[in-house]
Amino acid sequence: MQTPKKVGITGSGLVGSLLAIYLKKQGHDVDIYDRRPDIRETEFSGRSINLAVSTRGWKALEYVGIRKEIEALAIPMDKRAIHVEGKPVYYQYYGKEGEAIYSISRGVLNKKMIDLAEGEGARFIFNSKVWDVSLTEAILYTGKSERETLEPHQYDLIFGADGAFSRIRHKMQRSSMFNYSQKFLKTGYKELSIPAGPGNVHRMDKNSLHIWPRGSFMLIALPNLDGSFTCTLFMPYHGVNSFEELDTEAKVTVFFQKYFDDVIQEMPDLLTEFFKNPTSSLVTIKCEPWTSHDKVALIGDAAHAIVPFYGQGMNVGFEDITVLNSLIEQYGDDWGTIFEYYQTQRKPNTDAVAELSYRNFIEMSSKTADEKFILRKNIEKRFSEKHPDKWMPLYSRVTFSTDPYVKALEQGDFQKAIMDEIMEMDHIEKIWNQEEVEQKILQMLAQKVSV
Amino acid sequence: MQTPKKVGITGSGLVGSLLAIYLKKQGHDVDIYDRRPDIRETEFSGRSINLAVSTRGWKALEYVGIRKEIEALAIPMDKRAIHVEGKPVYYQYYGKEGEAIYSISRGVLNKKMIDLAEGEGARFIFNSKVWDVSLTEAILYTGKSERETLEPHQYDLIFGADGAFSRIRHKMQRSSMFNYSQKFLKTGYKELSIPAGPGNVHRMDKNSLHIWPRGSFMLIALPNLDGSFTCTLFMPYHGVNSFEELDTEAKVTVFFQKYFDDVIQEMPDLLTEFFKNPTSSLVTIKCEPWTSHDKVALIGDAAHAIVPFYGQGMNVGFEDITVLNSLIEQYGDDWGTIFEYYQTQRKPNTDAVAELSYRNFIEMSSKTADEKFILRKNIEKRFSEKHPDKWMPLYSRVTFSTDPYVKALEQGDFQKAIMDEIMEMDHIEKIWNQEEVEQKILQMLAQKVSV
Repeated sequence: MQTPKKVGITGSGLVGSLLAIYLKKQGHDVDIYDRRPDIRETEFSGRSINLAVSTRGWKALEYVGIRKEIEALAIPMDKRAIHVEGKPVYYQYYGKEGEAIYSISRGVLNKKMIDLAEGEGARFIFNSKVWDVSLTEAILYTGKSERETLEPHQYDLIFGADGAFSRIRHKMQRSSMFNYSQKFLKTGYKELSIPAGPGNVHRMDKNSLHIWPRGSFMLIALPNLDGSFTCTLFMPYHGVNSFEELDTEAKVTVFFQKYFDDVIQEMPDLLTEFFKNPTSSLVTIKCEPWTSHDKVALIGDAAHAIVPFYGQGMNVGFEDITVLNSLIEQYGDDWGTIFEYYQTQRKPNTDAVAELSYRNFIEMSSKTADEKFILRKNIEKRFSEKHPDKWMPLYSRVTFSTDPYVKALEQGDFQKAIMDEIMEMDHIEKIWNQEEVEQKILQMLAQKVSV
Repeated sequence: MQTPKKVGITGSGLVGSLLAIYLKKQGHDVDIYDRRPDIRETEFSGRSINLAVSTRGWKALEYVGIRKEIEALAIPMDKRAIHVEGKPVYYQYYGKEGEAIYSISRGVLNKKMIDLAEGEGARFIFNSKVWDVSLTEAILYTGKSERETLEPHQYDLIFGADGAFSRIRHKMQRSSMFNYSQKFLKTGYKELSIPAGPGNVHRMDKNSLHIWPRGSFMLIALPNLDGSFTCTLFMPYHGVNSFEELDTEAKVTVFFQKYFDDVIQEMPDLLTEFFKNPTSSLVTIKCEPWTSHDKVALIGDAAHAIVPFYGQGMNVGFEDITVLNSLIEQYGDDWGTIFEYYQTQRKPNTDAVAELSYRNFIEMSSKTADEKFILRKNIEKRFSEKHPDKWMPLYSRVTFSTDPYVKALEQGDFQKAIMDEIMEMDHIEKIWNQEEVEQKILQMLAQKVSV
């Protein structure tokens, strides 16, 4: 059992709220600051990709007994529905029978998590911006503006769960020896929607993550409980087929008619949304160290913002909490050791998932439409079903396992090298399900390091 | 000829001062702001590695006719003097006969450059910190403190030459789509000194850059005009043989007696300096874009801080000015094009010199003491002297040429691959100066892409 501490958390998002639940259950006193108003009392801004909860996320929710409540708000998606131009929709299952990722609205989930954290006794302080922090003394400073007198709030421990543009990290960055990088994609995104059909029925298969892969850009759609879909258009800022180019309603209409003609009629609010909703940027942020003076730690996006193409952003943040919690259980009040191991264990894994997520943009936006890619996936799927002890596809290891992301990245590269050779076999498109292919994979696995 | 512009420069360091000279000669009105007092009127803080001016630096100085004046303040170093434990000093020439890098005190050089810029009519505003900048309007804001009313200064163009922790870059970083990274070495440095001997005579060879390579740490010494040497101890912050470990005078004495016994008697102020002088950090900073709204541009360390192990920091900053100047001469008043090409041309090259500088720490601190390394250098030197059209050693290309750093990095890797094979030849230590080795190098050069 832990000696109760006074803990301050910045950021009432998903990671901040779940961390509050964990810390309350351990007996700590928890305050959560957010510069924004309580999202339970406001219209949600509608600037967020729907989330896909997968195994790592569920594990963290289950441990504190709230999986069921969250599951009730989510829709399982067991496959990609791939909309290639001029072809029927093609379905590609994510994993084995019964494996799925779960679509949930960020706003709906966040509201629920805040309710649950409040239920545990955490105190939320909304509309309260943290302008400064003392890293040595664990004091948060709030106030109306940076130029006015700030109010100090003394804690024993502070967690910066304040997202990609974390104020806590900003302060750490100004101290010496803080490694930091932020890298933006030249691709941005815009949220759009497909409203529910008559009788609140989904207008497309609701158990799929729909993708319209178009090379340098793509549209995706994730189902909501109310029958609607949240869509996201990923597209370069500049150049051919870019946000810059689509600057009139006429151009947007022509563009959607040309590239997304099977769905444009389901998007009655397209033009309004396209010009009302912001074009948002995609950034990868890495930093080190994550902790300061055994009193302040970063968690979630504040420590490691990633691009969304593996659907892991929230899941990796929740896994931070799982790891932190198991260290707390192991080392009790020794926060120096807890913080040290927390960073040592997490940093390589969050770097790995950043890399995997970055790479997956290529897979989602272009390769999913490629027949060679589909063949490759089918060969992998067949082999892993026959030899589950010898082969777990990369997507499954990231999404349906809790193996370290570092291992996923390494094994993914190893398996890719094997599959590259397999795809070079003569007439692979004909012999792909033959003994010969299976034997060659087995042979290559035996030759190289073990899986 | 250019239409005269009102130009504001932040930072009165070497790059800021030289840029002011260039811009004044082109007829612009130039103000230079610095938060520090005029270094010509203050004791220099003594926290700087001596600089080594090499070909790129001289080229930029020569173009505005001030090379001779600066040369008079510098001491040529045509070789490394390598102090290996228990062996006589070994001299390793940097280049061909007559090639040298030039040791100069940063303080001495900076004072001279400010004098020269003032002579051209540039206006220096010292003790004036720039707190904020409008990137869209090209306005600098100065004042006593961030919390008080700031005074605006309107310009047509602004150059941020305010170093590794640039305020201008800081503002650019807060805008979206700004890629940025800062990475600190786990090695820090501390300045020490060897005073002049009787009659202001140098106590060691004055035309050498002295190195005491000791693996994870090293001491270097560069000559000054007054007979003294400026020394720098590079050493890890933590662990065995670290700044953290050397926390008493007794420990420092024992450490220097053990590792630098041939020089400790020449350092009478060692203990005072060791505990008075700060331990400074070594950082690599990269960012992109370097320019904003065709009105504001970063230059020198503000755009690309590098570690000092190739002696290129100032030289790369001066080369920024050479490139910028040639674009100004080419494109006249088209600052949009000038800024665009300035970044396009410089960014890959400054990334390359960052990589080369990082790698050179390994070479300086450990490999220079290694007999295999010396043999390798001798083989390269012999070959390049016989075939100067076919082989320029990497060090020479970086230091004694104005070839793009990108080319230096590429050719360096290519030559390294060849030399790795050469060093694997049987009895290479005996046959190194034989026809056989020369022929093998020629053959490998012919097989691969041309130099």
